[in-house]
Amino acid sequence: MKNPLKTIRETKPLIHHITNGVTIYDCANMTRAFGALPVMAHAPEECADMTGISSALVLNIGTLTSEIIDSMIISAVAANKKKIPVILDAVGVGATKFRDDMAEKILNSVHIDIIKGNYSEIAKLAGENAETKGVEATSIDADPEKVAKELAKSKSSIVVMTGKEDIISDGKKTYIVKNGHEQMGSIVGTGCMAASVIGLFASVNSNYFDASKDALCYFGVAGELAAAKSNGPGSFKVNLYDEVFNLSDEKVENMMNVEEK
Amino acid sequence: MKNPLKTIRETKPLIHHITNGVTIYDCANMTRAFGALPVMAHAPEECADMTGISSALVLNIGTLTSEIIDSMIISAVAANKKKIPVILDAVGVGATKFRDDMAEKILNSVHIDIIKGNYSEIAKLAGENAETKGVEATSIDADPEKVAKELAKSKSSIVVMTGKEDIISDGKKTYIVKNGHEQMGSIVGTGCMAASVIGLFASVNSNYFDASKDALCYFGVAGELAAAKSNGPGSFKVNLYDEVFNLSDEKVENMMNVEEK
Amino acid sequence: MKNPLKTIRETKPLIHHITNGVTIYDCANMTRAFGALPVMAHAPEECADMTGISSALVLNIGTLTSEIIDSMIISAVAANKKKIPVILDAVGVGATKFRDDMAEKILNSVHIDIIKGNYSEIAKLAGENAETKGVEATSIDADPEKVAKELAKSKSSIVVMTGKEDIISDGKKTYIVKNGHEQMGSIVGTGCMAASVIGLFASVNSNYFDASKDALCYFGVAGELAAAKSNGPGSFKVNLYDEVFNLSDEKVENMMNVEEK
Repeated sequence: MKNPLKTIRETKPLIHHITNGVTIYDCANMTRAFGALPVMAHAPEECADMTGISSALVLNIGTLTSEIIDSMIISAVAANKKKIPVILDAVGVGATKFRDDMAEKILNSVHIDIIKGNYSEIAKLAGENAETKGVEATSIDADPEKVAKELAKSKSSIVVMTGKEDIISDGKKTYIVKNGHEQMGSIVGTGCMAASVIGLFASVNSNYFDASKDALCYFGVAGELAAAKSNGPGSFKVNLYDEVFNLSDEKVENMMNVEEK
Repeated sequence: MKNPLKTIRETKPLIHHITNGVTIYDCANMTRAFGALPVMAHAPEECADMTGISSALVLNIGTLTSEIIDSMIISAVAANKKKIPVILDAVGVGATKFRDDMAEKILNSVHIDIIKGNYSEIAKLAGENAETKGVEATSIDADPEKVAKELAKSKSSIVVMTGKEDIISDGKKTYIVKNGHEQMGSIVGTGCMAASVIGLFASVNSNYFDASKDALCYFGVAGELAAAKSNGPGSFKVNLYDEVFNLSDEKVENMMNVEEK
Repeated sequence: MKNPLKTIRETKPLIHHITNGVTIYDCANMTRAFGALPVMAHAPEECADMTGISSALVLNIGTLTSEIIDSMIISAVAANKKKIPVILDAVGVGATKFRDDMAEKILNSVHIDIIKGNYSEIAKLAGENAETKGVEATSIDADPEKVAKELAKSKSSIVVMTGKEDIISDGKKTYIVKNGHEQMGSIVGTGCMAASVIGLFASVNSNYFDASKDALCYFGVAGELAAAKSNGPGSFKVNLYDEVFNLSDEKVENMMNVEEK
């Protein structure tokens, strides 16, 4: 679609998150910096109602409990019914059996429109042999593009695999997103924020494959601009927010770095 | 009262929060930047004891659960008994029935000295027809000043209604606070922080009507000063903390912008 | 040991935290800024598994519940078995009976390798008459060095007592660390971050007495460097992260300020 950022800023979609306790503030604040409205609500008594007034649902299992997983499923059922996009950030899958099991439980209970994770998280979800060091990817044996494609096919989902290069697959086509900067890995939370950004781009574009690509390009461009003026992770984070806030569709268009396969 | 900020910095009141998981850090850190001491404690086994050594209790239902509401009520009972101010930030009332019900439960169980919310949250509490978009205000039909006054009267509370202009009512008189800057809305959490700031001004001034006005003026002035030197929400937040830390009673006195009705 | 920071950056130890909801992000992000990998996981179903792939376990009771304490004990049992260091930050001990009881429960259930707290928290744990104002130390009657020594002896632990000067005892010898800057107290969370930093230095150095000393010196030096260029708590925090990221073993060696007794 044309001018997704302008659309987000004009329509101010409400993005419902059920997320982790570490980066919950940054997921909310990054949503706000892009011009959308975040809401975080996980109580089982209200989470479906909150999803019901929202334009996307972002799930992140970074600090999961079994109760939180139940709330995620309640909300995702509501989102599936309302036909708004559901994004799952599979944080830490491959690190413990509990995470593997809970991610499976979600994927078997509801439809996830966009499955996001790092290389080893996605590989593990795809049934490959993979281990995650806490929430950090380790190298995988399988070919990442193939892994993304297979998981996308088997789940009828868009798969977003983040790393030095981001791989996005709809089961047939692949985007390789080369925007972004290594300084984004120097702070905690850019992965989680990326899932939020995907959520808000998907909330205004029913082509989730393209929306995911746009999201990572826009966020990556802001990261590149911020890195150029930073002295470390403290100033980088400040600049990242300023750059996101000052992005425009025109600015990103000139800096997009994507390969389509 | 004269020199409220000086008083806060000299007496370092302890401000007990039971608050949401999104802005909990900023509520604590803003309390610290003003010179007071924050403590966050929500376990039912200790929350009354923690209130018992504190000078104000700040409740915020942003990421409520039914268990957290129970702890809030336990602590508010202790606060009422000790006669320290209780502030309720009614985040998201008007968005889901659960939030409406839980806010009512609190208001029917204990005395809230200062009820704070945005325009639609307060309107909903006052029994008006109002909807909140997640935690964001939507426009209301009723006259905001009248709504604040009615709620203040019916609950024998100070009502603080935040928005482009902040309305404070004690049921008879009204303050319109015009300090603040739109950049405060560009980051998540300034509303929550404002409730903390009200808590700490009320902890040193038993005239809660005036304390609420002072709190919003001081915080608003810091926001104005920060906005003047910021390039976006990242640098704005950094500057907001620096400006709060460097405030003085004299500096604010010259910049206060309040109408009394 | 020589070049602990270099070792951390080369080996990237995984540091498992079960911590409080206020500073959880900063504990993770400071761990990252030093070059290690943080993971936060508290579900009873997975916490032992997560400890099992980690190199240190950091426990912080700042926003404790009885369920969280149970998870801490489960993880600490796994850590004791794996012989990786367990750090307990006894936040708020001396403020409520519940905190005193829960800290005792942990200390009676598992071995804590490094017990950290401010002056009144440690004094309370040592059986002295002491009160903590929320999470802020109050002055204690007893001699702090003696208190640290006695607790270290009775628990066979390293005791780290933070304040204007930090006292570290192994029950026989004492380090007095004089690095650091008062601006570190102007923001919330530096105490919690210090526990994380101790965890990551202990993960690469089995001499926990020296590791604790190194941790406080390195973190303190970064605080001194950051304070020199800051205008308040907002910019101080940004600079603190940048300075940590840009530390080197050589830089700290020249600025270490420690007395050994």
